[in-house]
Amino acid sequence: MSFINDRFMIGNERGVKLYQDYAKDLPVIDYHCHLDAKEIFENQNAANISQLWLGGDHYKWRAMRANGIDEKFITGDASPEEKFAAWAETVESSFGNPLYHWTHLELNKYFSCDEPLGSHNWREIMEHCNRLLQQPDFAPRELIKRSNVEVICTTDSPLDSLRYHQLLRDDASFNVKVLPTFRPDDVFAEDALVFSAFITRLAEITQVDIASFNDFTAAMGNRIDYFHETGCRISDHGPVEIRYQAANEEDINRLFNRKRKGEALNPQETARLESAIFVMLARHYKQRKWAMQIHFGAIRNNNTRMYRALGVNTGFDSLTDQNHLAANLNRLLDAMAQADALPKTILYNLNASYNDVVATTIANFQSAEHGVKSPIQFGSGWWFNDTRRGMENQLNSLADQGLLMNFVGMLTDSRSLVSYTRHDYFRRILCNLIGGWVEKGEVPDNNDILSRMIVNICHDNARNYFDF
Amino acid sequence: MSFINDRFMIGNERGVKLYQDYAKDLPVIDYHCHLDAKEIFENQNAANISQLWLGGDHYKWRAMRANGIDEKFITGDASPEEKFAAWAETVESSFGNPLYHWTHLELNKYFSCDEPLGSHNWREIMEHCNRLLQQPDFAPRELIKRSNVEVICTTDSPLDSLRYHQLLRDDASFNVKVLPTFRPDDVFAEDALVFSAFITRLAEITQVDIASFNDFTAAMGNRIDYFHETGCRISDHGPVEIRYQAANEEDINRLFNRKRKGEALNPQETARLESAIFVMLARHYKQRKWAMQIHFGAIRNNNTRMYRALGVNTGFDSLTDQNHLAANLNRLLDAMAQADALPKTILYNLNASYNDVVATTIANFQSAEHGVKSPIQFGSGWWFNDTRRGMENQLNSLADQGLLMNFVGMLTDSRSLVSYTRHDYFRRILCNLIGGWVEKGEVPDNNDILSRMIVNICHDNARNYFDF
Amino acid sequence: MSFINDRFMIGNERGVKLYQDYAKDLPVIDYHCHLDAKEIFENQNAANISQLWLGGDHYKWRAMRANGIDEKFITGDASPEEKFAAWAETVESSFGNPLYHWTHLELNKYFSCDEPLGSHNWREIMEHCNRLLQQPDFAPRELIKRSNVEVICTTDSPLDSLRYHQLLRDDASFNVKVLPTFRPDDVFAEDALVFSAFITRLAEITQVDIASFNDFTAAMGNRIDYFHETGCRISDHGPVEIRYQAANEEDINRLFNRKRKGEALNPQETARLESAIFVMLARHYKQRKWAMQIHFGAIRNNNTRMYRALGVNTGFDSLTDQNHLAANLNRLLDAMAQADALPKTILYNLNASYNDVVATTIANFQSAEHGVKSPIQFGSGWWFNDTRRGMENQLNSLADQGLLMNFVGMLTDSRSLVSYTRHDYFRRILCNLIGGWVEKGEVPDNNDILSRMIVNICHDNARNYFDF
Repeated sequence: MSFINDRFMIGNERGVKLYQDYAKDLPVIDYHCHLDAKEIFENQNAANISQLWLGGDHYKWRAMRANGIDEKFITGDASPEEKFAAWAETVESSFGNPLYHWTHLELNKYFSCDEPLGSHNWREIMEHCNRLLQQPDFAPRELIKRSNVEVICTTDSPLDSLRYHQLLRDDASFNVKVLPTFRPDDVFAEDALVFSAFITRLAEITQVDIASFNDFTAAMGNRIDYFHETGCRISDHGPVEIRYQAANEEDINRLFNRKRKGEALNPQETARLESAIFVMLARHYKQRKWAMQIHFGAIRNNNTRMYRALGVNTGFDSLTDQNHLAANLNRLLDAMAQADALPKTILYNLNASYNDVVATTIANFQSAEHGVKSPIQFGSGWWFNDTRRGMENQLNSLADQGLLMNFVGMLTDSRSLVSYTRHDYFRRILCNLIGGWVEKGEVPDNNDILSRMIVNICHDNARNYFDF
Repeated sequence: MSFINDRFMIGNERGVKLYQDYAKDLPVIDYHCHLDAKEIFENQNAANISQLWLGGDHYKWRAMRANGIDEKFITGDASPEEKFAAWAETVESSFGNPLYHWTHLELNKYFSCDEPLGSHNWREIMEHCNRLLQQPDFAPRELIKRSNVEVICTTDSPLDSLRYHQLLRDDASFNVKVLPTFRPDDVFAEDALVFSAFITRLAEITQVDIASFNDFTAAMGNRIDYFHETGCRISDHGPVEIRYQAANEEDINRLFNRKRKGEALNPQETARLESAIFVMLARHYKQRKWAMQIHFGAIRNNNTRMYRALGVNTGFDSLTDQNHLAANLNRLLDAMAQADALPKTILYNLNASYNDVVATTIANFQSAEHGVKSPIQFGSGWWFNDTRRGMENQLNSLADQGLLMNFVGMLTDSRSLVSYTRHDYFRRILCNLIGGWVEKGEVPDNNDILSRMIVNICHDNARNYFDF
Repeated sequence: MSFINDRFMIGNERGVKLYQDYAKDLPVIDYHCHLDAKEIFENQNAANISQLWLGGDHYKWRAMRANGIDEKFITGDASPEEKFAAWAETVESSFGNPLYHWTHLELNKYFSCDEPLGSHNWREIMEHCNRLLQQPDFAPRELIKRSNVEVICTTDSPLDSLRYHQLLRDDASFNVKVLPTFRPDDVFAEDALVFSAFITRLAEITQVDIASFNDFTAAMGNRIDYFHETGCRISDHGPVEIRYQAANEEDINRLFNRKRKGEALNPQETARLESAIFVMLARHYKQRKWAMQIHFGAIRNNNTRMYRALGVNTGFDSLTDQNHLAANLNRLLDAMAQADALPKTILYNLNASYNDVVATTIANFQSAEHGVKSPIQFGSGWWFNDTRRGMENQLNSLADQGLLMNFVGMLTDSRSLVSYTRHDYFRRILCNLIGGWVEKGEVPDNNDILSRMIVNICHDNARNYFDF
């Protein structure tokens, strides 16, 4: 029997039963991913398993580099076969890394393959997968349907036309909601020229003459409305650190106009302007009942030679540590709350040693005003925490400092159409945790409550929380 | 059978036996709490379970807010029944949070109620509790006696008359020691006006003309003597961060006089003055063989709107992160040690990611001069760490970096008369940990040593450490 | 049966089998320790067990201080018997501390003694050990051979003559490699006078006239060549914090010359000069295919009174916290990589809350260019992490963020000839971890891969990684 079975990742009987009876077959609400709406619309099968798995997955690239594989076989000009062979050799050396689990969950679920991949059978498995990938049920939309997905939220620039989201919405043959997410990275760009170019383009698209922070506010509202009409109900932000600095209106306007002209701001000025922009956007989100996501704590492109050779998102990123996170995060949320501008918010933390800081800060801003339970959410284990350990850390911290019952659960955060197994992985870890509480006598074996927890966290909470 | 039984929280047989044979029935030395001596002296029963549980417990309030409960039913004008119903609904959603355990430990121990509280039975349980609360054995002193408490240390301002402590001492009908703790918050107040008002009042009460830091030292010694006469043997301090800055006598005197006049000091000046005050107080404590407690790392009142509406201690606090804790903490203790002014000291850490920093710093200042083992103590999991995870983290860190055998153990840190179950909760977690070591073969099954560990940590070490 | 048996520290059957079949009897490559080559060459037996165990082991001294033992019986003038009795009393109180395990592993392995040491049997065990210590097989070289050691790397000043390493190399009667490690502490000394004195002595020894940073570079290369000829293939560095600051050539030369003259530099200048020296040394190491070790995060001698009385390495050290470790560590490695000067590198982290920062940073700089797998290594749990918890934290973090299969494994970091049991301790913890994955169904029970992991991590990876 394959090691991928109903007991995989679940070390207690109660957990196995919760998984089988409740978690396993629930639909997926994938409220945060990096899929491409165009790719879903065009619905072309992947050329081969090497392209599907190794075309852009920097998690796998990092593992291959740690295994002494030459870059030629990672991002270089080696053949798909050579790359797959190099990957198979790496998989065999990856016991203990979640890539080992993800790889075999995907082989099991999508390719009905239960053999552990290794250097002895790479060609056989590659050929098996490549054959299947040409079948109709491996087209993107079929993969999504087979994965029991109800909603997909992609990640999009404020200036995007959202054409493919509209085409998908209007396509009666495909019922899965594919919604955009508003991710205004360029308004937080350190480089004033990037900022300035964004404003110029924003002015063109919205036909708002942007001469002040107020105009900027209006123009952003215009785009947020546009996204709203196309079904968007979530935004996303990715600051390296959380820095809050107050500023008055005059100051904000002055800083905005200087950066608008391409002038570099110093760190304090940057913090003041960005804080003001963040609060302004949050107010827009709150007014439209959106949820705001904040992913913080990643420092990227740390290997300059490789960045120059390969660009961004190629596997050279770290989690970071910052000063006074607790004070800054509290001040940021407080500034929003004081301005009646704190929307439903999901905070994703990359450095797990801050989990309790985040979980206790979140608890300071819960309220009944949004009509949902736990409007301020501690997001699931992100990126480097997307591991058993990372997920358990987040679940335990949330359980200790808040109500796990009300957690909106898992997301894929992926560029891949076969990553829905991440939801399955999460559900197993969740069932193991909660089943373990029962087996250790820490909670009564009340099936009503236990099943409600599982169904809530794996599906219903997300459905109720978001306004899709 | 209720899930609250002799196996609750204990996952191994050796641990269950240690709990039953040694831990379970030991008396309680509650060397740190926030009970009110007046309330104990006056000995009035609580009006009802809503008042007892929900009148001031911001842990429960936070959970209710995270459950989408309107503030009306938390701190607002809803009826006791409505509030209890809202709490019962929240309890049912709190699997994984220690509140679930505390609630049922209290129902079990004080109210002989073994039913899990929920939205289906809230009225029945409320009425059961309310009936019992009118009985004589639910008066404060009876609750304390039923809890097998030997000593209670409350938390008190240096200017307090300690009248109720004296009345209790002189009341032959009540044998539990109720002792004050010297907690001089106002001498560390950032606001110079609060500081100045405290000095003025201190001068009046002590009849010392305070014109210099030396006078201030004498006046504080006067109050410390007053507390000592009323049985006080412990002080307590709650700095947000640990900051040590050296200063010479002239500098200290100058800074003292400026702040005395209500003048604001900058952060460096504040650190210098506060460091000097801390060392001065520590010298007083050491001379009298007191223990000094330091609770650090909380940032409070982070939600301005709610702070304005509800005031302090209402559930809007976080743990914080600071720069260079290790260096500052070492320097503070070293300054005291160099001045022969380091008393027995208990450090309570709120951010568990600093546990090993704290545990290894403590080990730098152990010595035989106080006549007790481990005079510098790593305090039990505090506030947000008052969970299974938080306690195990503290116990494991202390065991790795020091001698767990010499740990002074648990305290309630509570405002409630039915929180003594926290000691029971701690004892179960301790027995589970140590029993687990035996079952995993990490230590020999030597009952003499094992039982000594349990009895020491749960009772004897506190008795020997403090000079009550 | 003694609690030190094949199941000690291993809680699952698969782990016990991996330990027995593969780990237990592997030879030891001890690539980092603090043994004295002279002591090995001269091969004199220890006078008694008190000297062997208590003569310089500040881990034990700390535990004794935490147990209320007077300094007289620790580092003072008490007799060897009195000291041993004080230690035995402390051992009995050290359940939960690794010292309890190390003590009994050493008694078991070297002294065939299976009785738990305590205050009831200290004299008997002391006399037993003292008798054995006079036997020929307790001479240093015999202890090393009995420990199945292949290679020992000591820690040495760049100015050391390495005479005893050469004598050992030339002694045909002793086949264990005893190689030096290049540890240039003084070139990173904060005190400009220490720095300056080092340069003067370096100039004398190398006969290089050091008038510029380039001359310094050449002179250091000269010593590195000298070490290389005596078999050295590793360097070691111990910065308190990781601080990277870029500087141009002119700036570096100017700062070098100022410090050379004994002039104090400010913190920014210090960071710039030290960064340049670090990159310069790294280039030398890379050119010679050496491995560079960096142990960071210790603050030392925190108790001034005890430092004045006893000096360094006497048990008054802590782990520390620093600002922006992730950014600085990435920048340092990136500066080396950009200069084609990043050698094989092992990073040892003292504050486990930074484990994931370190593990993800390491992954940014892996490459195939060194001809070894995982040239950038996350070193084993160091000093305060040399515990079950510390090792498991490091192993889990590495497994999640890299490939555990390629880890170079354990080192003793010890001054003691009977510390090789630390390798055994590590192997048990490793087998328990990996065996646990199999038993929980997280990885297939593939004996080829599992045994390869064990043998790689416990021996073969170190053999392949280092160029001994």
